[in-house]
Amino acid sequence: MHTLDLAGRRFVLRRAVAGDLPELVALLADDVMGRERESADLAPYERAFALIDRDPQQLLLAVRDEEEVMAATMQLTLMPSLSRGGAIRLQIEAVRVAASTRGSGLGAALFSWAHDWGRAQGASLAQLTTDRSRVDAHRFYERLGYVPSHVGFKLSL
Amino acid sequence: MHTLDLAGRRFVLRRAVAGDLPELVALLADDVMGRERESADLAPYERAFALIDRDPQQLLLAVRDEEEVMAATMQLTLMPSLSRGGAIRLQIEAVRVAASTRGSGLGAALFSWAHDWGRAQGASLAQLTTDRSRVDAHRFYERLGYVPSHVGFKLSL
Repeated sequence: MHTLDLAGRRFVLRRAVAGDLPELVALLADDVMGRERESADLAPYERAFALIDRDPQQLLLAVRDEEEVMAATMQLTLMPSLSRGGAIRLQIEAVRVAASTRGSGLGAALFSWAHDWGRAQGASLAQLTTDRSRVDAHRFYERLGYVPSHVGFKLSL
Repeated sequence: MHTLDLAGRRFVLRRAVAGDLPELVALLADDVMGRERESADLAPYERAFALIDRDPQQLLLAVRDEEEVMAATMQLTLMPSLSRGGAIRLQIEAVRVAASTRGSGLGAALFSWAHDWGRAQGASLAQLTTDRSRVDAHRFYERLGYVPSHVGFKLSL
């Protein structure tokens, strides 16, 4: 458990547990793209959570505010790789900050925490992709120092 | 071990072993971007290989031609995730095909094999990023059906 104190608000950051799932899925679905991609049936998320939870390279975060409301989530993956001198990569996926919490600085604080965590695990490169249409997210990541050097390709299998 | 027969040439695809490392690193370094990023010292690659090799979510491929010359490599990572209905993602990193092998169809055959492998492991989405400047690679991935829907951001930690 970690606390993030931001302008009079306190957020508590924990490794997600199975009981967080309904609120985490609701957070993923409360999004312009997520509302088409996520479903009301929890069963596939429960199976996915079990896989994430047992993988030591994965850290799924659940962030709650002072009233225990789910305020944010992100998934961190440690990926060892040969390239870039045998770099361990910190991959960041499925980032969401609740609409009620935007503007609080929580997003930037959460990324700062994630980068510190990655460094402590030996990672030397953070990487993420974001949809081309999310221009506000692009500006946010550039403010954090991220460079939009790559094109992200996806293929349904 | 798997064989890929392509227009009179036979390639053998195996899970990489420690003995493959010098040739794999040479393949990563024989590249317009890799030559600045990779080093002659094998020690960091040996440490990285040990991490990859013990992670059950990782498959590092070594592909040799009929004369045992290293012809291609790619790293496959299975990433469970909550988003997109609890999708397992097949992340593809560090793809290289030896200059001597280009035009043989090995690249496309290797991706086809990787997608089949991912499906067999339960993955429903393949994802990769490639540098903005690699326009030939962009065309190659689009021919395979990949959609350049995302921007890939990187940050040195």
